[in-house]
Amino acid sequence: MTHLNFSVTVLGSNSAIPANGRFPSAQVVNIQEQLFLIDCGEGTQIRMSDFKIKRSKINQIFISHLHGDHIFGLPGLLNSFALNGRKETLEIFSPKGLERLIDLIFETTDAHQSFDIVFHEIDTEQHQLIFQNEKVKVYSIPLNHRIPTTGFLFKEKPFPKKIIPEKIIEYDIPFSKINEIKQGADFTRNEGLVIQNTELVFEGKPPRSFAYCSDTSYFQKIIPFIKNVDLLYHEATYMEDKVGVANERGHSTAKEAAKIAKLSGAKQLMLGHFSNRYKNLNPLLNEAKEVFENSVLAIEGKTVAIDFS
Amino acid sequence: MTHLNFSVTVLGSNSAIPANGRFPSAQVVNIQEQLFLIDCGEGTQIRMSDFKIKRSKINQIFISHLHGDHIFGLPGLLNSFALNGRKETLEIFSPKGLERLIDLIFETTDAHQSFDIVFHEIDTEQHQLIFQNEKVKVYSIPLNHRIPTTGFLFKEKPFPKKIIPEKIIEYDIPFSKINEIKQGADFTRNEGLVIQNTELVFEGKPPRSFAYCSDTSYFQKIIPFIKNVDLLYHEATYMEDKVGVANERGHSTAKEAAKIAKLSGAKQLMLGHFSNRYKNLNPLLNEAKEVFENSVLAIEGKTVAIDFS
Repeated sequence: MTHLNFSVTVLGSNSAIPANGRFPSAQVVNIQEQLFLIDCGEGTQIRMSDFKIKRSKINQIFISHLHGDHIFGLPGLLNSFALNGRKETLEIFSPKGLERLIDLIFETTDAHQSFDIVFHEIDTEQHQLIFQNEKVKVYSIPLNHRIPTTGFLFKEKPFPKKIIPEKIIEYDIPFSKINEIKQGADFTRNEGLVIQNTELVFEGKPPRSFAYCSDTSYFQKIIPFIKNVDLLYHEATYMEDKVGVANERGHSTAKEAAKIAKLSGAKQLMLGHFSNRYKNLNPLLNEAKEVFENSVLAIEGKTVAIDFS
Repeated sequence: MTHLNFSVTVLGSNSAIPANGRFPSAQVVNIQEQLFLIDCGEGTQIRMSDFKIKRSKINQIFISHLHGDHIFGLPGLLNSFALNGRKETLEIFSPKGLERLIDLIFETTDAHQSFDIVFHEIDTEQHQLIFQNEKVKVYSIPLNHRIPTTGFLFKEKPFPKKIIPEKIIEYDIPFSKINEIKQGADFTRNEGLVIQNTELVFEGKPPRSFAYCSDTSYFQKIIPFIKNVDLLYHEATYMEDKVGVANERGHSTAKEAAKIAKLSGAKQLMLGHFSNRYKNLNPLLNEAKEVFENSVLAIEGKTVAIDFS
């Protein structure tokens, strides 16, 4: 059922400076074949080519904060959209300040826009619905970093209920009534007998969710917003021996990320935004696993699929 | 004699959009172990890591024009300099408009500058000396593109003359006189006889030169400025069947680049700034070679050394 895909592909996993073969932050979320880009560090469009991501399928970009390692790939990506003659409107969700910068970049580089960009400013103090379409709702998650920063919660919309096939035969339900029953209606037979909806249907697949939390220091306030999330991406810039540096700079350790995963009841944790100092990332993974076993590293090119639980 | 190195390393060779594994424009010139960066497309700092270029050794950056594919790597590179605690002043030479953009980028991304940047605005209508130090002079070259664009001519300063060893013995020249003779002085013997400088010295190594001409349409006016250059980098965005498109967009074909090389008496030609449409670049090289045999392709990671002729 590829049309019910829900997966996250890592394009960049490093913090601050590209190093050790790792690019700065960027991820692509695929929800039922709709692509959403989260953050756009330098080289994001190059990574998209490397990993065969069809950039034209992206209509929404979510930017967590305006530090360079999360946005310096944006001018190139937007420029390439224009050079490819993109026509579809692009929506960009970010903290305040991006529109003015993008405007000056276009002006300075004499870029000719072939498409409209709609900028949505996010209030980074609020947990609120910032985008929805027929498949998904996206919520902001207030994070605790050096500058205004937001995380993102992607939640699938509920799947429709399914009719129990045997009941269609038992009560001779006509085809014309199927849709309204799926949406919750009772069924009234010709002789006036009402069959309760709950007797006729079973629940659709459980909607899945993904939370992106970067950059942030250890911040328990996010826990209610990401309760029972299927996949939590949480930054893990440092190992535990650098917990002081982490907190000072508005970052987390791998162990702190794991604590958040555990306390929020996440099903899986993905660690990322690694400091340059770590060439080998396994020690970070091990520290996280001591607290939360189902942890994985954000590896560029790797796709983590979220299955129905 | 590695301290007399003069070489050009290609970091990015593609036009407009990174594609076919090729990055946008950037080159590093090494002149006697001083590094100069020319253009800075997206991913330049990533390419520097790939090819083990020590970015901290760069103190001058030369930007040909303000199209995105020549500058979108600059914010990330400057940011990395700051994050690495750079202290040395950085000089950036470019057409007007860059300083304002860089200022807003730093402001928007809350970047903390650890070093000074001196911006030098280039008059893209003039061929003039824009930089010199003890090793090299750099001149602007007016190019013909859609927006104000300049090329760059790197010319080594003359090497000092050398004293003919036999003459030191023949005329019993004291050590204290050696330096002034190297600089052109005659030598007066004790008995009053004057030995002409030309009898005592031979010329030092011939100074070498490199010209960077991108982006530009076929533009004969540059020929006097690049006369007899050792290595000419000239853009070759298209093949000859696209000469109309090339001229319309302010670009050149490989054959046109070769004509410029031939007419200017260049010793070697390097072609670059390739259109995405060319996955295989050999047909471009072949078209150039029909006009100018000593042509090579700009291949990322490749270093072209300029030897003494």
